[in-house]
Parts: sequence; structure tokens; C-alpha cells
Amino acid sequence: MKIIKNPLQIQKISIELMKKNKSIGLVPTMGALHLGHISLIKKSVSQNDITVVSIYVNPIQFGPNEDYKRYPRPIKDDIEICKKNGVDYLFLPTNETLYDNDFSTYVTVDKLSNMMCGVTRPIHFRGVATIVSKLFNMILPDRAYFGLKDYQQYTVIKQMVKDLNFKIKVIGCPIVREKNGLAMSSRNTYLSQEAKENASNIHKILVNAKKSFNSGKNIFSVIKEAGILLSKIENSEVDYIEARDSNTLQPVQTTSKKVVIAVAVKVQNIRLIDNILC
Amino acid sequence: MKIIKNPLQIQKISIELMKKNKSIGLVPTMGALHLGHISLIKKSVSQNDITVVSIYVNPIQFGPNEDYKRYPRPIKDDIEICKKNGVDYLFLPTNETLYDNDFSTYVTVDKLSNMMCGVTRPIHFRGVATIVSKLFNMILPDRAYFGLKDYQQYTVIKQMVKDLNFKIKVIGCPIVREKNGLAMSSRNTYLSQEAKENASNIHKILVNAKKSFNSGKNIFSVIKEAGILLSKIENSEVDYIEARDSNTLQPVQTTSKKVVIAVAVKVQNIRLIDNILC
Repeated sequence: MKIIKNPLQIQKISIELMKKNKSIGLVPTMGALHLGHISLIKKSVSQNDITVVSIYVNPIQFGPNEDYKRYPRPIKDDIEICKKNGVDYLFLPTNETLYDNDFSTYVTVDKLSNMMCGVTRPIHFRGVATIVSKLFNMILPDRAYFGLKDYQQYTVIKQMVKDLNFKIKVIGCPIVREKNGLAMSSRNTYLSQEAKENASNIHKILVNAKKSFNSGKNIFSVIKEAGILLSKIENSEVDYIEARDSNTLQPVQTTSKKVVIAVAVKVQNIRLIDNILC
Repeated sequence: MKIIKNPLQIQKISIELMKKNKSIGLVPTMGALHLGHISLIKKSVSQNDITVVSIYVNPIQFGPNEDYKRYPRPIKDDIEICKKNGVDYLFLPTNETLYDNDFSTYVTVDKLSNMMCGVTRPIHFRGVATIVSKLFNMILPDRAYFGLKDYQQYTVIKQMVKDLNFKIKVIGCPIVREKNGLAMSSRNTYLSQEAKENASNIHKILVNAKKSFNSGKNIFSVIKEAGILLSKIENSEVDYIEARDSNTLQPVQTTSKKVVIAVAVKVQNIRLIDNILC
């Protein structure tokens, strides 16, 4: 595995690989790799000649009161995980090489960025779409892998790829969970053992909500009841619970064929997201 | 010369060319090709294995009261011009293939888009940066050619390419003028012969302004005087005259090494732009 820090160097390598007809899979991450990330890496390794993992805690997707500074950065462990799982290139850029002082170009996916997580994180998806565009232009992947835990992010990236004519297949991979049901997240390291147990109720509540919906219960009643249960989790505060069309993220309608129920809940003041496809 | 209308087809061709190590030059235009465009095409043909010209009147860069509908579209003449000047591929996309109903991704170059032409055309550079991103992703050029008549556009695209890590060289080509000095523009066809003569004074005024500045006169006095002269052109209305650092487009300072004086003037109610590098 080669570790590359320079954007021009990874771009040069990518162009050479492309000219040699090698397919490239990209797994963009912020590091603190867990089994969720590993499932993306494995998928990419199985589908492409070359797998590139990027690890970069992207400052422009964090709000001023968010956890940019304290976000976990266990880089030695991450490097080992990448090596063990067949990654060909690990891209580790720095702020200095990605954002010049006069940086001022942003990619926004208007319709999808102001709802759900975008309400409390207004610049988040702009930051995500911008860094992912940059990574796409540097690494020129054939396929890019995203976890479905951040379902809105996955939808934003799919829309961006379509709208901006990127020649890239966006592949969403299933949520990987702890034994107790808690969705894997780098931010779970912030939680105490007790908080993790409390947080594991999020998934249980969503599973029951899906059951109710699929057995014919009105989606708005389902959401309301699940919201009440979420708010009863110890030490929790519900940011949102929403049912959306899973293709468009527009509010559910009677014509919605596929529904995603998505939530953001603070447990022990740590903001966690999760969702379930019904 | 091959005419391609389908975005996926031009992208497939571009990828194949790239894999064959052919360099690609892109000349993005809105058609109504004149000697200015031809100079870009010739430059591209001389510097690349393959030259792609795109002709597309991009709706999202026009404001609601602008000339999107009446913009000239002499497509037969344009095709002949491209054929005669060694273009390999002419890309002629349609609104339907470029903008799906759910289109919602925009590229903005914040610092450079709200000044100068951006004041009266607030969505213009967002539309330009977005379509150019799309064309870059479809055509994967090594070099892209822009006329320096729209100096702000050239600066916006250069910034975007740098910020989003496009592997593309942006090449600005000198303004081509009528004999009387009027900068070539597809919009000149809107002007009567008399208005063209009146409008030719714009360049003369800028040439004199440059002379004054280079002979040591204070830039703000130079601009003020030139503005008065511009406003005296028959049937004219000055939108703006500004002196800016030609690299950053920030307001001139005593440290500015290179200065561009840029203007937008309505003559016979047709908005014309021009500039001069001092």
C-alpha cells in the first residue's frame, strides 16, 4: 500500500491508472475507521482493480460549534486497517494542500441540503459536496462507496454526480451495526458504555416503526410514536425524525414507493444519526 | 468533424481519447461564432491532438429579464465555421439532456461572482461555473480556452479549476476586435451600424485610460474620467467601470502589480463588456 499526501501526485497516479484501463474504487472517509468503513473497502476491493481510501477530516463541513477539533484521528490504526484490507493507495491530504487561502469555490445540492440534517448543520452538505468533488477530480474513480448510515449524504452525492455529469457510479453500502444494534460511527467513541446501551434503542425503535408501517399503519402516526419513544431514551434529545421518499428525500406522499425513516438524536449530547429503509 | 448531441456519448469518446493518450482542447461557446471564437479554436487546434467545441446557450446563466430567448443561434453557419477551422468534435447538447427536472447542483465561486458583472447579473457566474464544470466532466479536456473579453469569467473559471482540483489548464486568449476597436461579441449583432460606431468609443476610452495610468496618473482619477467619457457615448448607460487587480479581481491597491480596467456599458440598451490590461 502506498501512502500519498500530495493532491497532484495522487492525480498523476490516477490518470496513469486510467490510461492503463485499471478501474478505480474510491472510499472517501474521515478516518477513525470501523467495521462500517471496512465493509466499504472490501466492497471496493472486490469490484475494482485499484482501491483508493482517502482519510481527511474536512474542516468546511463542520459548523463553528461542532466537533472538528476533537474528531478522532487514530491515524496509525487506520493505516494498519487499510493495509490489512487490500487498499492500494491511502490518500492523506492536509488542509494546506486542499484549501488555499483564496479558496472560494463551493458545490451545493440545493434541494437536498437544507432539510433533515441540513437544518441544524446548514453548511454541512455544501462542505461534503465540495470535498467529494475535489476528491473525484483528483482520484477519477469509476466507483465511489458511501455508507447508507448517512442516507442524506448518499442522496446528495448521487444527485451531484448526476447533475455535474461525473462519470462515477455511487455505491451505497448497508449500515453496519454493533451487536446491540447501534449503528457503527466514528463518533461512538465519544459515548460512555451506558450511553451506547441507551443509544442502541434508536435502532430498535426504527425496526418497530418499520414493522408498524409495513403492517399498514399510517406513516405519520408511526413517526409520531417513534419520536415519542426516541425522546424517552435516557439522556437524549431528538433532533429530528422524518419519513421521506428514499429516492428523492421529498416528504412522503401516498405515491411514495420506497420510504426511509431517518433520525438524528443526541445521546449524552453526542449527535447520532440512523435510518431504516421500509 | 463529428457532431455529438448526447452527453454520455461525448464522455465515452473523451475517455477513449484520454486512454489513447490524446490531448483534448475544449472551446466552450454559446455559438454565434465570430473571429474571437475562431481565435480560440485555432489556438486549441495548434496545442492539442483533438479539439472539441461546445455550442450551448446555457439557460441557467441568464437572468429572468435577459436575452436567453433572443440570443442568436445561427447553427448552420457555426457548424461550417467549426468544420473549416479543424474542429474534431462539435458538441451540441440540449436543455433536456443537461438539466433534468430535478437538477439542483450548482458550483459557485463566492469571492469573484458578486462584484462587477455579478452585481447586475447575480446568478450569472453560478450558471457559468456550473455548466463549465459539467462540460469539464463530460469532455475531460487537458486545456480549455476562454476569451479575455469576459475577464471576470476567465478569472472565475481559473479559480474554480484550482479550487476543485480539475486537471485542466485554463487558457485566456486576447480580445479580438472589429477594425474600429469594438470588441467582438455575439451580442454585437443586436446593434445598429450607428450603435456599433458609438460603441467603438469604449475601446478608445480604455486605451486612453491605460495610457494615463501608465504615465503615472492616479488610478481613481483615471477611472473617474473614463467613466465620464463613457457616459457621454450617445445612447449609452454605464453599468460599471472598475479597476481591479488582474490576478485576484480585488480592488486595486498601491501594491497591485497588474491592473485590469473593466467596463460594462449599455449602448442602444445592449449590454456590452470590455476591458484592458494595464
